[in-house]
Amino acid sequence: MRSAELIELWRGGQRESLHCGDAVVCDTKGVVEAWGRPGTIVFPRSSCKMIQALPLVESGAADAAGLTDRHLALACASHNGARIHVDAVEGWLRALGMAEPDLRCGCHMPRDPDENRRLTCGDEGPSQLHNNCSGKHAGFLTLNRHLRGGAEYVDPGHSVQQAVKAAFEEVTGENSPGFGIDGCSAPNWSCSLAGLGRAMAAFADPPDDTRGRAMRRLVDAMRAHPELVAGEGPACTILMRATGGRVAAKTGAEAVFVAILPNQGLGVALKVTDGATRAAEAAITALLVHLGVLGESDPAVGRFLTDPLRNWRGIPTGEMRTAPGFPA
Amino acid sequence: MRSAELIELWRGGQRESLHCGDAVVCDTKGVVEAWGRPGTIVFPRSSCKMIQALPLVESGAADAAGLTDRHLALACASHNGARIHVDAVEGWLRALGMAEPDLRCGCHMPRDPDENRRLTCGDEGPSQLHNNCSGKHAGFLTLNRHLRGGAEYVDPGHSVQQAVKAAFEEVTGENSPGFGIDGCSAPNWSCSLAGLGRAMAAFADPPDDTRGRAMRRLVDAMRAHPELVAGEGPACTILMRATGGRVAAKTGAEAVFVAILPNQGLGVALKVTDGATRAAEAAITALLVHLGVLGESDPAVGRFLTDPLRNWRGIPTGEMRTAPGFPA
Repeated sequence: MRSAELIELWRGGQRESLHCGDAVVCDTKGVVEAWGRPGTIVFPRSSCKMIQALPLVESGAADAAGLTDRHLALACASHNGARIHVDAVEGWLRALGMAEPDLRCGCHMPRDPDENRRLTCGDEGPSQLHNNCSGKHAGFLTLNRHLRGGAEYVDPGHSVQQAVKAAFEEVTGENSPGFGIDGCSAPNWSCSLAGLGRAMAAFADPPDDTRGRAMRRLVDAMRAHPELVAGEGPACTILMRATGGRVAAKTGAEAVFVAILPNQGLGVALKVTDGATRAAEAAITALLVHLGVLGESDPAVGRFLTDPLRNWRGIPTGEMRTAPGFPA
Repeated sequence: MRSAELIELWRGGQRESLHCGDAVVCDTKGVVEAWGRPGTIVFPRSSCKMIQALPLVESGAADAAGLTDRHLALACASHNGARIHVDAVEGWLRALGMAEPDLRCGCHMPRDPDENRRLTCGDEGPSQLHNNCSGKHAGFLTLNRHLRGGAEYVDPGHSVQQAVKAAFEEVTGENSPGFGIDGCSAPNWSCSLAGLGRAMAAFADPPDDTRGRAMRRLVDAMRAHPELVAGEGPACTILMRATGGRVAAKTGAEAVFVAILPNQGLGVALKVTDGATRAAEAAITALLVHLGVLGESDPAVGRFLTDPLRNWRGIPTGEMRTAPGFPA
């Protein structure tokens, strides 16, 4: 089986570029609709942060630390390092009696334009609080305090990461073939795309038990605080707002995108083979329209898929299109 | 026929992403080595700037305006908008009795870090001189003065663009299926990848006539001034320097890359299907090693292909690899 053609770029009436990939729509029983190879093995990267946050909630660590929905949204976030994120994670660490040096995510410049400009023009380097994963790592530190683990909480054998691995394998229903080290230094376990989709379906239609309540709480936190999950500008925030809270959406590096649709009890997972963000954003947008949770004429659909592509003088130069057969 | 697998990204011992595409090595008689589909139709985008500069030289316009090799390198450039480029194009226009508003390329922020920071922190917007194509447009304006054409020199029917089209079809040996509007507003004519490769071979092994002398002059200008063709940082400059002037290399948007090898009389052209720059840079690097003009242990090969990929803490997280069968 081959990957599917998903997203095309056209210029002057000719197809200039093409993105292939794989996508699934699942309910809790399995795949209900697929394009390409549901069995392809993927690293979910940041798209599985809500899975990585399950042990934080299930263990009681979140309640013991008095975490709110805002903290849980940040634990699931790939934020753009705006002040709202940096300040919130700093406050979270302070409440734990910890600080930025306790993080193990590393530093990178924030994508938020205002904060980026403040650092660039003030000759200040970014801190680990700016790392898009700093909320996930604050969650790891919260769980770690609860588990009384050692400081190197990103080691694959550390109790925090072993708890994450167990949750990951349980919700995907698979033994992971292995892990890679993520941009933020945490291990990232691989699974089939269908396994990732099934996990998202479980978040959409959770069981009535400790895990199910943790899933519901994390999904509700994401939907209530899209600005914390990504920030002003990124696709996750725009798509969650555009769907009026009917969807929790999360991107991951190398063009993974997942969506949780509680009203339909559906989970979506896709990976663009070449890792292109533009194609992952266009493809998840097309799937949300396909599944009826995003109107075709919504500005978000224009932004990520249907608006003409324009050059530096504003002249339309081409367009993105869904490939024939995707999604319908 | 299908595109070929060109470049892979691996993480944790698993293939995470894959870039497919097409590539050819040509001499003036045609394709001598190919991966994927030599007949695939591509927009060369900025990779064909040396073709777009042919009428400037052949017509006598360049000599009439007293252009030097530095000007010709800029005419073939996709520069990063550093002061060296901005100042040179500004001086070129001034010598023509023209100025920035005569350009039709539009404004975008420069990629050169110093100039980008200067504008960002000084609250100054970029000018059209910063546009990576400003040198090509200064060349168009120089030709236009010679041809006594109208001000809207980027119109597809304008005598400047018709001269470019004629040269493009002659050196590719094809009737172009059509044009798209490029990021800089100039028409960009499409051709087969083999046609683009043959054109590059002609630049590598030019005939002894007016066209051939123009080709030689443009290739020599590019090789003599790699810092003007791209700037400090971009792949074109690094690869031209690494090959010790044995290669003129030029990238184009949506992951086109060409190379001219005068010593071998060979031309190279490739297009990564998905438009990813990282893959185009890795693939052209692999081909230059394959063709013996770049040493396997050269730092440029590490930078664009073989160095481990590292995360924000400097930890190796994966690597790029050439796909089996590419290039050998």
